[in-house]
Amino acid sequence: MDVFGSKTGAVSGDRQLTYAQFGERAERLADALTQRGIQPGDRVAYLSFNNNELLEGYYGVIQARAIVMPLNVRLAEGELGAILAHSGARMVIFENDFLPLVERLRPRLPDAKHWIEIGPAYEEMIASGVPRRADIFSYDEMSIAELFYTSGSTGTPKGATLSHRTICMHGLSVALQCHRPENIVDLHTIPLFHANGWGRPQASTLLGSKQVMVRRFEPETVFRLIQEHRATDMSLVPTMANALLNSPARDKYDLSSLRRMMTGGAASSPALVERWEKAFPGCECCAGYGLTETSPVITTALWKGIEYGSDEERWRRQAMTGWAVPGADVRVVDSEMRDVPRDGKTIGEIVVQGDQVMDGYFRDPEGTRAAMTGTWLHTGDMAVWDEESYVNIVDRKKEIIISGGENISSIEVESAIQAHPAVMECAVVSAPDDKWGEVPAAIVVRKAGYGLSEDELRSFLEGRLSRFKHPRIFEFRDEALPKTGTGKIRKMILKERFWTGKEKRIQG
Amino acid sequence: MDVFGSKTGAVSGDRQLTYAQFGERAERLADALTQRGIQPGDRVAYLSFNNNELLEGYYGVIQARAIVMPLNVRLAEGELGAILAHSGARMVIFENDFLPLVERLRPRLPDAKHWIEIGPAYEEMIASGVPRRADIFSYDEMSIAELFYTSGSTGTPKGATLSHRTICMHGLSVALQCHRPENIVDLHTIPLFHANGWGRPQASTLLGSKQVMVRRFEPETVFRLIQEHRATDMSLVPTMANALLNSPARDKYDLSSLRRMMTGGAASSPALVERWEKAFPGCECCAGYGLTETSPVITTALWKGIEYGSDEERWRRQAMTGWAVPGADVRVVDSEMRDVPRDGKTIGEIVVQGDQVMDGYFRDPEGTRAAMTGTWLHTGDMAVWDEESYVNIVDRKKEIIISGGENISSIEVESAIQAHPAVMECAVVSAPDDKWGEVPAAIVVRKAGYGLSEDELRSFLEGRLSRFKHPRIFEFRDEALPKTGTGKIRKMILKERFWTGKEKRIQG
Repeated sequence: MDVFGSKTGAVSGDRQLTYAQFGERAERLADALTQRGIQPGDRVAYLSFNNNELLEGYYGVIQARAIVMPLNVRLAEGELGAILAHSGARMVIFENDFLPLVERLRPRLPDAKHWIEIGPAYEEMIASGVPRRADIFSYDEMSIAELFYTSGSTGTPKGATLSHRTICMHGLSVALQCHRPENIVDLHTIPLFHANGWGRPQASTLLGSKQVMVRRFEPETVFRLIQEHRATDMSLVPTMANALLNSPARDKYDLSSLRRMMTGGAASSPALVERWEKAFPGCECCAGYGLTETSPVITTALWKGIEYGSDEERWRRQAMTGWAVPGADVRVVDSEMRDVPRDGKTIGEIVVQGDQVMDGYFRDPEGTRAAMTGTWLHTGDMAVWDEESYVNIVDRKKEIIISGGENISSIEVESAIQAHPAVMECAVVSAPDDKWGEVPAAIVVRKAGYGLSEDELRSFLEGRLSRFKHPRIFEFRDEALPKTGTGKIRKMILKERFWTGKEKRIQG
Repeated sequence: MDVFGSKTGAVSGDRQLTYAQFGERAERLADALTQRGIQPGDRVAYLSFNNNELLEGYYGVIQARAIVMPLNVRLAEGELGAILAHSGARMVIFENDFLPLVERLRPRLPDAKHWIEIGPAYEEMIASGVPRRADIFSYDEMSIAELFYTSGSTGTPKGATLSHRTICMHGLSVALQCHRPENIVDLHTIPLFHANGWGRPQASTLLGSKQVMVRRFEPETVFRLIQEHRATDMSLVPTMANALLNSPARDKYDLSSLRRMMTGGAASSPALVERWEKAFPGCECCAGYGLTETSPVITTALWKGIEYGSDEERWRRQAMTGWAVPGADVRVVDSEMRDVPRDGKTIGEIVVQGDQVMDGYFRDPEGTRAAMTGTWLHTGDMAVWDEESYVNIVDRKKEIIISGGENISSIEVESAIQAHPAVMECAVVSAPDDKWGEVPAAIVVRKAGYGLSEDELRSFLEGRLSRFKHPRIFEFRDEALPKTGTGKIRKMILKERFWTGKEKRIQG
């Protein structure tokens, strides 16, 4: 409900509810049921045509750990009475159309203590509930969530029991099956032994995609394989994406089949998203995020289906770390595990829980304990988040630059520098400073044939970056920066030179 | 692997494997590992760039209940040695590039009994394995499937353990998240208390779709809501679909937003799919199938991404009961639970197991026992299936017409009659016959303004339907046939008249 908050969720007659409103009403319903003595496992029946009240019942009743039991309103009175008696329903929520029926059934059903008519009585109940987020990870997934009686054309009706787990799996599999897109051809560009690479085949195989191996990354090989197999999807580390964008071979190939390119392994930038989408029309470029400990993908910055006013705003969103995949909870917290404000500014650590989180570290109980707070995994990534549940990493915990007591995100500074058209790639690391403790240092690689001076870059950053975040040291290089196997810049090596012989002071 | 059998699965250099071949190699690998003494929980490490061998390792190793452990080939020799020692890997599968490294590591790793080089030695191992389908529902889903060591830039590398359950959930959530289509607007046309209707909101809510309630089905209301909300998706019972197709109000509305319409609750027909797709260009029409006991959706006939030669063949496929959704196993079996031949002709009962199957019937242990054989649910639906894992229902177990020892599917006969342009709707039921035991009887409703005689219909069926399947009784009506709340024709009522006072003989 956080994720799709401002989108219209339910349309019922003249009423339109956003996902935030839909979610809040379901939470209020759950609390109101508990207030009225509905216990875990109690059955709450519905006699209703399609409307938002029945829809929210599917969520609110099970959130109260009770069992939702919608009835087929076209059954005969005797059948409905038999089902209500067999199930021992405690509450019946009904539309006004069924009032005469309800009045006849009621005296015969002593177990059914509560009869709530949709309309003012139901709204009063909703209003009396307090919206509270359920801690669904504490629920027993094998307990019954839904109870449906089959038509029972032969003999007595039978009530099929569906657990929380069963309906979750059903929802995922149907959403996947019914909304699979056009024929996908997946290019495995990232090594399959790497967090960023190995998660892809799981989804590709589920979808029956053609999976094309890139044995080793090399721009022209990638272009050739895209053209040959009409590849639609791939993942890239931002430095790989830059290499493709800057390769002169690009124009020699037909790359029009590309539909989705996801960056991961390092921060993206709105400038990269914009360049990519302009260079590859029809291909959505967005960031994704995950860790070895989360299987790996835990967020994506894919378009949610919410209209933004401008391409710029959309690019900005798509360059963010993103929003949680189904089945995952992602929060940004302070050192006491409290949510930091969703203001897009306050920095905290990303913690995650959910179906995708590892069970622990192999043969390392101590390491496992250090990484987890209960079911929550600490990512070590520092981020901000906002009302739309987008998180955005500002730095690794250990790469934040603390200058005069201020937190400076090395990624933010890199992003500002990267926006200059003459910059091929850059890295910002902390360097020691007697006055400020630490200051940002930028190592910049210019594009071949471009001249760019320190002064030009400094004035380019004016107005784009707060003054205290400006690098104090600029270093220009001609060769590419040192990288890991997945193409991440090895910042530790770049940083080491500044710190050799000095001890890093921890401030703030 | 059955589902996407003939599609290209893995492309690796010059090698292209279909999903059937990819699956078979993974099965052979699993068996070969077991033959070589690899035990459940043993670690099998890989030193390899991206290729089909590493990809099949992700499936074959865990099918052998062992743990797959791909290594980052760019790590230093000391790091790789430390990881292999910490994990106690039993087998290492490596590319020739790493042979010198392997020769140096090998003497230091006494736990690693098997070192297999990709190439002839690996192919020999694959050839030695027997392909056998794993009974994955017997696996402990909480046991470790994958083990990945994090880069460990600080201190010793840590091995993140991922269980079968975790990677399954990850695959589903990522496939769903990364391949969500354009903005979906879902019209809830079927009552939400009904099998056919209640499963939709689970997926719609996961996808953050706008969900528009149709309080009660009425063609013009549906058209108005589609136009007003630019609805993209809906489910219909075939009789509802016919009502929309036949409604003169259709031309008054802009219905161009429709993208997917799924029929359920009764058999579809290629003629219906064709009419729908021609009436609503850009909207895919296909069948889906499920039961109250399966949450409900268990198959869909959505296009798999396999090219068929003609539209006719595609319509024929899309009108079938379909293929299993992820997480479900669907089989067609005889009374001994043996698969019937996948020949598209031999009739058996559909049985299903998987994540979507109910836990049992509420307060009815006996009913539960009767419906299940182990983890398999008996659907009571009689069907055929084929090499592409499409199942196609020919009848309810109790609605099969047994005439002179031959099984006649009432649905097949209805489908043939329905193809006549003057037919609005029809039902075929069994009627008693002294000579044949039972014979098919057809009750036909003509479209307003169309004349259609018994003789005309009989000659229409010539050549379209085997002679013994032709109805012996034709009844023409002007009013609509009696229907259930979801729009299914109430065949029992139609049949009763023929049988009153007679006892149905069970034959054959």
